[in-house]
Amino acid sequence: MENASYQRIVLAARPQGKVQLTNFRLETLAQPTFAALKDNEVLVKNHFLSLDPYMRGRMSTAKSYAAPQALDETMIGATVGKVVASKHADFRTGNDVIGMLGWAEMGIAHGNTLRLVTSTVPLSANLGVVGMPGVTAWYGINQILQAKAGNTLVVSAASGAVGSVVGQLAKLKGCRVVGIAGGERKCRYVIDQLGFDACIDYQLAKTEKELFTNLSVAAKDGIDLLFENVGSTIFDASLACLKPYAKIALCGMIAGYNGEAPVLKNCNKLLTMRAMLQGFIVTEHMEIWPEALQELAELVVKGKIKYHETVAQGLSSAPEAFIGLLNGQNLGKQLVKLS
Amino acid sequence: MENASYQRIVLAARPQGKVQLTNFRLETLAQPTFAALKDNEVLVKNHFLSLDPYMRGRMSTAKSYAAPQALDETMIGATVGKVVASKHADFRTGNDVIGMLGWAEMGIAHGNTLRLVTSTVPLSANLGVVGMPGVTAWYGINQILQAKAGNTLVVSAASGAVGSVVGQLAKLKGCRVVGIAGGERKCRYVIDQLGFDACIDYQLAKTEKELFTNLSVAAKDGIDLLFENVGSTIFDASLACLKPYAKIALCGMIAGYNGEAPVLKNCNKLLTMRAMLQGFIVTEHMEIWPEALQELAELVVKGKIKYHETVAQGLSSAPEAFIGLLNGQNLGKQLVKLS
Repeated sequence: MENASYQRIVLAARPQGKVQLTNFRLETLAQPTFAALKDNEVLVKNHFLSLDPYMRGRMSTAKSYAAPQALDETMIGATVGKVVASKHADFRTGNDVIGMLGWAEMGIAHGNTLRLVTSTVPLSANLGVVGMPGVTAWYGINQILQAKAGNTLVVSAASGAVGSVVGQLAKLKGCRVVGIAGGERKCRYVIDQLGFDACIDYQLAKTEKELFTNLSVAAKDGIDLLFENVGSTIFDASLACLKPYAKIALCGMIAGYNGEAPVLKNCNKLLTMRAMLQGFIVTEHMEIWPEALQELAELVVKGKIKYHETVAQGLSSAPEAFIGLLNGQNLGKQLVKLS
Repeated sequence: MENASYQRIVLAARPQGKVQLTNFRLETLAQPTFAALKDNEVLVKNHFLSLDPYMRGRMSTAKSYAAPQALDETMIGATVGKVVASKHADFRTGNDVIGMLGWAEMGIAHGNTLRLVTSTVPLSANLGVVGMPGVTAWYGINQILQAKAGNTLVVSAASGAVGSVVGQLAKLKGCRVVGIAGGERKCRYVIDQLGFDACIDYQLAKTEKELFTNLSVAAKDGIDLLFENVGSTIFDASLACLKPYAKIALCGMIAGYNGEAPVLKNCNKLLTMRAMLQGFIVTEHMEIWPEALQELAELVVKGKIKYHETVAQGLSSAPEAFIGLLNGQNLGKQLVKLS
């Protein structure tokens, strides 16, 4: 009897500028069997693949915090799936697990790279609000910004998987929260559904000065805390609105991920406002994950944190969905449903 | 008998772009007398005036950490001088004191704004290495950067009043120290006289890429600690050389002080290197001054910190000397000798 097959997507070519569909290649392979597993390995069939901006960085060879994604190998990515065979004592057939199986319908992972899902929330939430994006927001709010009641917090990419949690956590701490997002739908979502105090639609601003003016009206006493996901002119507008002793959690600069230099004009504000800025990658702070995941799950269960998912259907839709993510077409967490 | 006269320099007009001699006006006034003093005031005849880059900021009305210098008032500035009359219990005639008497041969100050000089070092050193510039260096090295043996530290404006102390303090802590300065004379000075390990002459680099290459060779394992005084392309070159978890003390951005936007291209390194940046103003941290001044004075007395002064003669030379400072023409601390 022949093995059944499964599909995966590999990096076919590194992007020059914007990511194209031709940067990816869909491949069909024979399914691994139990016999193929080494000691401590686990065979997982994936339910969902998470698409995240960091993947754009891995597609390039530019020096960064992680080695580049290898050509012709399965694209990196977080997944939630079900164990179908295990040679690791901590996992048994039927367990739902989170791992880094990549853009693939199934795969083999060392048990040490897997963890059991938080079962009190839907499976897919383990890739978003109760997963890496949520913990990223939690780390920035609690460890870097140390948000306090009365602070004015601004977050860019406000409706995204990270930004939406940032704003809600800050509201729970008593902050005034101003989002920045692209388009009326996203702005309405974070105000009406997530309870932000205001949201600036950067697409409505015709000039940098207009963006600054709109933001300075919404954050009318200036910015105490900034959670930056975008960079470029959006970061510049926030820098121009900083209050003295402002704190900045620098989480992402998606505006520059296509390779163009994201020039900043208002860095002098870091000096004149005596600001503190901290760049961070949440996977380097694994010690806070258990506490963060527990707190986030409780807040989701209680309905105190809401989330939205944009779900593409089937592995073959992943490249287009990823390009959409980089262009800001998703609302909330971008996922791919695999089975 | 008529009163004797004294001279002062006032801000005559705010600069548009580069500072010009016509921004200043020399005035002659009648000397104040003991009778003019209110309770707790002190009449001081100044020996030296300190010229510092921060003064450029005060000449503009742009929002910053301090109110702008008023037009037609004595230019702000730190001074060291001798008490000639006192109605304050802590000061008596003949005391040498540090104050903010400004660009003036004499003046009246409230006793609370004065302090006695550190007598173990020359008078003028109280305005430099054992004064505000030295404490600025000390604060950045100890409080922000927390320099440790084996760290590679880069400091821009390396031969200046602040930079020269930064590098020497870092050497005493066992750091590898690379300076950035303009011209062979300054570079030779910090290497041969101050003991820096290397110094990049930014004037020799024809392109930004060449500056980056030169710096990346000198700081060959990357930058752990950056003490930034300049901004613009010089800051950009250092950003490009950051190591993971680099720390940055942002002290000045003199390249932008003439009003042009000092654009930065490499801010993405703050994210990818997970850097921490802290802007600061040393006068907001008065609690560390006593310890810092004592340590700096001891190091100067022991010959472990060296310093150089560029001294202009007479109050009327101050505007030209200040313009020279902004253009990088001085070596070490820029002073004006008044009497």
